[in-house]
Amino acid sequence: MLDAIQKPVLVIDEDRCKRNITRITAKAKKNGCEFRPHFKTHQSIAVGRWFRDEGVKGITVSTPEMAKYFANDGWDDITIAFPFHPSQLNSLLELEQRARLQLFINSEDHLRLLNNQLQNPFKWYVEVDPDYGRSGIHYTHTDLIKKLIDQSESLEKSNFEGFYVHDGRTYQARGKAEIIEKINPVISILKDLKARFSPAKISLGDTPSASCLDDFDGIDIITPGNLVFYDWMQVQIGSCSLDDVAVFALLPVAQHIENENRAIIHGGAVHLSKDFVTTTSGKRNYGQVIHYAEDDTIKPAGDLFLGSLSQEHGIVKYQSDADNVFSEHQRVWVCPVHSCLTANLFDHYVTTAGEKIEKRILS
Amino acid sequence: MLDAIQKPVLVIDEDRCKRNITRITAKAKKNGCEFRPHFKTHQSIAVGRWFRDEGVKGITVSTPEMAKYFANDGWDDITIAFPFHPSQLNSLLELEQRARLQLFINSEDHLRLLNNQLQNPFKWYVEVDPDYGRSGIHYTHTDLIKKLIDQSESLEKSNFEGFYVHDGRTYQARGKAEIIEKINPVISILKDLKARFSPAKISLGDTPSASCLDDFDGIDIITPGNLVFYDWMQVQIGSCSLDDVAVFALLPVAQHIENENRAIIHGGAVHLSKDFVTTTSGKRNYGQVIHYAEDDTIKPAGDLFLGSLSQEHGIVKYQSDADNVFSEHQRVWVCPVHSCLTANLFDHYVTTAGEKIEKRILS
Repeated sequence: MLDAIQKPVLVIDEDRCKRNITRITAKAKKNGCEFRPHFKTHQSIAVGRWFRDEGVKGITVSTPEMAKYFANDGWDDITIAFPFHPSQLNSLLELEQRARLQLFINSEDHLRLLNNQLQNPFKWYVEVDPDYGRSGIHYTHTDLIKKLIDQSESLEKSNFEGFYVHDGRTYQARGKAEIIEKINPVISILKDLKARFSPAKISLGDTPSASCLDDFDGIDIITPGNLVFYDWMQVQIGSCSLDDVAVFALLPVAQHIENENRAIIHGGAVHLSKDFVTTTSGKRNYGQVIHYAEDDTIKPAGDLFLGSLSQEHGIVKYQSDADNVFSEHQRVWVCPVHSCLTANLFDHYVTTAGEKIEKRILS
Repeated sequence: MLDAIQKPVLVIDEDRCKRNITRITAKAKKNGCEFRPHFKTHQSIAVGRWFRDEGVKGITVSTPEMAKYFANDGWDDITIAFPFHPSQLNSLLELEQRARLQLFINSEDHLRLLNNQLQNPFKWYVEVDPDYGRSGIHYTHTDLIKKLIDQSESLEKSNFEGFYVHDGRTYQARGKAEIIEKINPVISILKDLKARFSPAKISLGDTPSASCLDDFDGIDIITPGNLVFYDWMQVQIGSCSLDDVAVFALLPVAQHIENENRAIIHGGAVHLSKDFVTTTSGKRNYGQVIHYAEDDTIKPAGDLFLGSLSQEHGIVKYQSDADNVFSEHQRVWVCPVHSCLTANLFDHYVTTAGEKIEKRILS
């Protein structure tokens, strides 16, 4: 039972979570698009099985270590969506015994190294930078892309799979129209590359696009991660409604200072992470207090949010007594701002019924 | 050997770390002040023993769970520096079998509850809010403070120990003079309370004050945590020099895009946390790239810093080729912005010689 838990805990709403998985799986299937979910968000074998139940076969992870964790549960078709670097080689040698690998490669040296060292064939993507400025190869550098693909053709184990984009600029959008406005030129870039370097697949990574695009026509693969849980940031972006969020922190009220309209929550940076969204009045929101009603509806608890965080403390200030939802012996439900980072800070989840769900911990 | 490690790792410079411990221990001793270090920063039994070697007997932690971890290594005099809340009671019942407890109590109900439920005598502090606005009782609420102390006297197991302050406003200071200017009025508040509610001890929590005050005259206890490691934020504040920082992330260069003056580091929010300092030109610095020279000197690598972080990626942009310190097969040393949060994200440390140091993981 949740009531028996004595410290901050991260609760998965299993129904909402499965609904999110079902929705995106059906949407991808309808479009003939492969759904290779990014498992960095939940990092849980148990949650991974809910995807498998919906027919998901291939997955995406961040690191060889995360891949091993999921390979231990039988996942054998894994994309590592992070630029390959040579210090990962030993881990990949171990991993390829258990799973077919898809890698991100940016240099001819790395292609040769992997071809020489790995025992099995591997697939690889050009990670495309659509002018977002994180990792990958800028989409205009077609000479470099051509060199890599040409070289791949000469190497026995190397198989060029296609082009991958994660464009974080959709996280700056607000509303479906703006998300689509931002992602459409990126999809065009991918389609141009696909036409030029055929045969090639194109793969799209971000949660706002996967959530808001009406169809995935021409997109071969989507790899969103966050949409299994969503969070307060995605609600702000417009990728989902609060009713779609499937993970909440349940946090003890450590102190309630009524005459100063302030509550101190046992929920700090080591529980929620220091990611924040900026409110319309320019304040930092590190976590939205919500009401989790018995009829299973969720709504924001007025204007209550964690406005500052230290290592263990979260501070909620409120304006009037009408907003007061606190009492000393109580706990509050908080919708995390960035569920991937919050989930990374807990060593397990619990269900709303209080049952423990195992997950991977720091590595 | 560090060279054999294939993923992001957090390195403790053992010499610098022990030097930090020795320095503060000697300074406290000279002033007849008890040093009860906050162990939330390192969360490591091994590092804790370095304090014990310097004669430290009592420690400070954030939670009952953290207290249990250290009680397992024989620490038996532990302050839990977080407002007591009733959901902690079962943990405290277990803990008091192994350690004498010092708690923060804000309400008469809680004093009664603990007196009725605990088996052994306990000490408690009034956590004083010196108008900082986090937790505790505002220093002007002397009626409430008096009520608590009076009640404590009537309760068999309850022993009022004194007044505790952690004033985070010193983290906004820049330079020793400003730190002292900010903390002196707070020390006066504590001394006034001590005079009024004698006998009482006064205890000061923050790292900038503990680092910069020339003496602790009249302060009975200090409980800083961060100063065991320090970090880039403390360098900015002026609590320490870069040469005092004792923990560094060693991070693989995942990709180096020379023609765009950008390097992608395998070091993201799951390694460093999303805490940042703002540079003089208004940019966010999530981690300072440093040179760790063979002669054991440390200096910043020019203007190189992690300017943006996603879950696994850290991005360094540089202005001119002269600043380029990157190559594909290399790793970079990064001074964390907030070492407490960075340390919390690793499941172990390594020494500069590559030896593993165990630590507590998420709970």
